[in-house]
Amino acid sequence: MAALYDRVALIGLGLIAGSMSLAMREAGLAREVVGYARSGATRDTAREIGLVDRVTDSAADAVKGADLVVLAVPVGAMGEVAAEIAPHLAPGATVTDVGSVKQAVIEAVGPHLPEGVHFVPGHPLAGTEHSGPRAGFAALFRNRWWLLTPPEGTDPEAVARLAALIRAMGANVEEMDAPHHDLVLAVTSHTPHLIAYTMVGVADHLKRVTESEVIKYSAAGFRDFTRIAASDPTMWRDVFLQNKEAVLDILGRFTEELFVLQRAIRMGDGPHLHDYFTRTRAIRRGIIEAGQDTAAPDFGRSLPAAGADVAKKP
Amino acid sequence: MAALYDRVALIGLGLIAGSMSLAMREAGLAREVVGYARSGATRDTAREIGLVDRVTDSAADAVKGADLVVLAVPVGAMGEVAAEIAPHLAPGATVTDVGSVKQAVIEAVGPHLPEGVHFVPGHPLAGTEHSGPRAGFAALFRNRWWLLTPPEGTDPEAVARLAALIRAMGANVEEMDAPHHDLVLAVTSHTPHLIAYTMVGVADHLKRVTESEVIKYSAAGFRDFTRIAASDPTMWRDVFLQNKEAVLDILGRFTEELFVLQRAIRMGDGPHLHDYFTRTRAIRRGIIEAGQDTAAPDFGRSLPAAGADVAKKP
Repeated sequence: MAALYDRVALIGLGLIAGSMSLAMREAGLAREVVGYARSGATRDTAREIGLVDRVTDSAADAVKGADLVVLAVPVGAMGEVAAEIAPHLAPGATVTDVGSVKQAVIEAVGPHLPEGVHFVPGHPLAGTEHSGPRAGFAALFRNRWWLLTPPEGTDPEAVARLAALIRAMGANVEEMDAPHHDLVLAVTSHTPHLIAYTMVGVADHLKRVTESEVIKYSAAGFRDFTRIAASDPTMWRDVFLQNKEAVLDILGRFTEELFVLQRAIRMGDGPHLHDYFTRTRAIRRGIIEAGQDTAAPDFGRSLPAAGADVAKKP
Repeated sequence: MAALYDRVALIGLGLIAGSMSLAMREAGLAREVVGYARSGATRDTAREIGLVDRVTDSAADAVKGADLVVLAVPVGAMGEVAAEIAPHLAPGATVTDVGSVKQAVIEAVGPHLPEGVHFVPGHPLAGTEHSGPRAGFAALFRNRWWLLTPPEGTDPEAVARLAALIRAMGANVEEMDAPHHDLVLAVTSHTPHLIAYTMVGVADHLKRVTESEVIKYSAAGFRDFTRIAASDPTMWRDVFLQNKEAVLDILGRFTEELFVLQRAIRMGDGPHLHDYFTRTRAIRRGIIEAGQDTAAPDFGRSLPAAGADVAKKP
């Protein structure tokens, strides 16, 4: 495929930026991919594994001459990074971001960008529980959604060109407004993460059940929660602080709902529980039919063979 | 391997009993596996796919001459089944069960069993979100834990023989007392399931976010919850009603913990959130090191190829 951008600058070199670089280079979507990360250790790793074509020692150097700049840092750091790069952006360049919250990022980044630079905020709904420059892989975005939330008046050509790049990396593109994005993500991502963190924290605190038992017997359901509760702490701290209103709204609904089920348990209301548990099955079927999860039992997990490591551990 | 039992009777022919039959027959662990299910449709399916050596039309017929009887029905149905089979049990037979709650099952089943029959309650920590006679597979128990909670005074030889059968199916055996079992499982299984059901219910109710968006954008975390919220509704209704005290205890702790995090979000307390999210990572590492989950990103899920079905759906 012909290159869609001449030079792409990645600010931040974690799971998302790394995967973008690998996907773009695999498909020849940019003539050059330049990268910068605040941490010297991350820059060294990126150089060592050849994650991008060129690693720079400042954000300013990375964006010079770039026609696409991708902000791939925790959402709480977006404003500061935007202020730093703004004077060095090429006229006509597009700036996008990959933050999990959109209103707060638009407010933090927008004011810094000069006239003639296009800002197209974005959010790839893709990722794993791993993080850092070694976590990326080119197939991360395949069949995943990538939401764009361009503010009114954004140049349609800048949006279309970015969308073409995203599709060429294998993702599906959808546009929506930023407040709606933040509410949808509060439901499908932010609140589930907070709840998973909480459940894992409860298990961690519980002294009557030792940690070794929590770990040994985790296959009965708990382990599913530990995957998303192993995600990057800085990224998630920022998500909750920056999408406060929507998360608190959904959390309130969650608590109400939980109390109704808790009361049904206390009162021995079997029919209520059975009805509730029957309705939730339909959503799982919908997700599998939409190609957003596997129908294989247990996510198709592969585990160590019988009698392997476990028996040997204390 | 030489057969460990002459005739094993399975009462209930769902995921667990079906998997036991397949595992026992694959390894030649019983001379005959007989099965019964209350539903005529389940019995027909079991006959059609040859799930057991022989399907009977009553529980009484199934247990006649069996030296091992496995109660594999929802925990709320255990007492009734025990009363039904009790007069037909062979002297010296062992009765076990596979229920997810142990104190309530011991209270419901124990009083019905005649002198000279050994009762060894058990719980395999294994399963998938699928249920019914077609859901079983021989490898289900490999490297999983199978907890036994024999009441004081249970014949040690009966326990040892059952443990040998379980190990021969690939599982690891541990003994503990029933109240401790019920607390451990409330943490590692029952409460996580209730929370997953609740989160999926919240998403289902939310009208501002349409169901189609919840499904489309589920890969951002939510879909992990939908797997365990797709489990068998009857089984789970009974678990919550029969392990009420322990589940309400853990739910109380969960809510407290959630409120502390919710307050940290409201007050903008970033350091608290970051600390919390850092500690929960360690538990995930422990689970992977103990061989109880895969280290592969995203559970090693395999999903449809790029641009496949999703784009075509409305």
